Amino acid sequence: MSGIKLIDIKEEVLAEERGLAESIRARLRARGLTLVNLMSSPGSGKTSLILRSVARLRDAYRIAVIEGDIDSAVDAERVARDGTPAVQIRTGGSCHLSPAMVEKGLASLPLDALDLVFLENIGNLICPAECDTGATLDIAIVSIPEGDDKPLKYPLVFRMADAVVVNKIDVADRFDFDPAAFRRSLRRLNPGAPVFDVSCATGAGIGAWCDWLGRATGHGAAPAP
Amino acid sequence: MSGIKLIDIKEEVLAEERGLAESIRARLRARGLTLVNLMSSPGSGKTSLILRSVARLRDAYRIAVIEGDIDSAVDAERVARDGTPAVQIRTGGSCHLSPAMVEKGLASLPLDALDLVFLENIGNLICPAECDTGATLDIAIVSIPEGDDKPLKYPLVFRMADAVVVNKIDVADRFDFDPAAFRRSLRRLNPGAPVFDVSCATGAGIGAWCDWLGRATGHGAAPAP
Repeated sequence: MSGIKLIDIKEEVLAEERGLAESIRARLRARGLTLVNLMSSPGSGKTSLILRSVARLRDAYRIAVIEGDIDSAVDAERVARDGTPAVQIRTGGSCHLSPAMVEKGLASLPLDALDLVFLENIGNLICPAECDTGATLDIAIVSIPEGDDKPLKYPLVFRMADAVVVNKIDVADRFDFDPAAFRRSLRRLNPGAPVFDVSCATGAGIGAWCDWLGRATGHGAAPAP
Repeated sequence: MSGIKLIDIKEEVLAEERGLAESIRARLRARGLTLVNLMSSPGSGKTSLILRSVARLRDAYRIAVIEGDIDSAVDAERVARDGTPAVQIRTGGSCHLSPAMVEKGLASLPLDALDLVFLENIGNLICPAECDTGATLDIAIVSIPEGDDKPLKYPLVFRMADAVVVNKIDVADRFDFDPAAFRRSLRRLNPGAPVFDVSCATGAGIGAWCDWLGRATGHGAAPAP
């Protein structure tokens, strides 16, 4: 069997993607540009968190947004209505953003005139975590109505996150979400990442999250919690 | 270029999977066994809907559950504690259930002694819709906190659904979910599928959903709404 040449296409593609992601990140760091990859289930509040963060950080930083969606441009329209430069990537079916898509998105932005770019990944707690986008910060968002067992069921995205945002805390009185159980299972996967409890509806907790994000901006690495 | 032999591996794998799914469905129909594939985002309430449905239907039908998860067996444990035969499929990373996994799950159940099997797919609104499991009924679940724009963003799962369940209506007063906008975008993709508004927390609407599911059981096809 040793005469057979094995062409492992999946491995080759993955290695190429990893190489491109590393190259994107190196170029971003050389510019001092922070690219924040937001990953969550559908409807956890990625777009709302972007809008709240932009409102808070826009006086200090020059910000743009890259929106990923399978179909539709509703999120980019929401962001653009808010006055922020926005690019919509429509994947046409693909369940996550690839570094090649991110490179195209970045190429359409005036990078020299920016400090911070939000990258809204496809609403999916699984596949985006498996594909390095080239971002300088990876953020996992989970919302109270989804339940406290998400780290047990979808470990990878919580393991790789530089920070975790727990959204919709304003409705905690109506759901059976145990914050201690959530933190216990998160800490088994990721002992160090800061956790920010926020409500994009009321604005609660957005200050602490934006302070941390501001400290990260320009440095290209996650600051201490 | 016409001398090149093209081996399209992905197409071949997909054709094999489709063939297996068709064969599973034909065998289920020949037995009069209904297999209900539940698809949704993480935390929309697939397990809760199974528990509510089993409680309502168990006197009339012999029921079992196949639980799909990437990691952990917490859902199968919840179901088994409730006294229902449950099989846990752990995909070890895969973002959806394949017909080969479903076939293994079915093989471990006493099919001659069953009328209805619930199949809880991986929490993911995208990839499960792309892979025919062999189920006789495909159900899309969405919950109020996720927002009314889900059909716009994740069209495939809503297009292929035999019925759509809208869960967590008990918290509708706390979220900005427009039922008319939801139905408008759903109807563009899927004019005929019945929509069931339910709360797995309070039990509201579970009766109408279970009546429909009961009418489908044993027939292997979706009844009229």
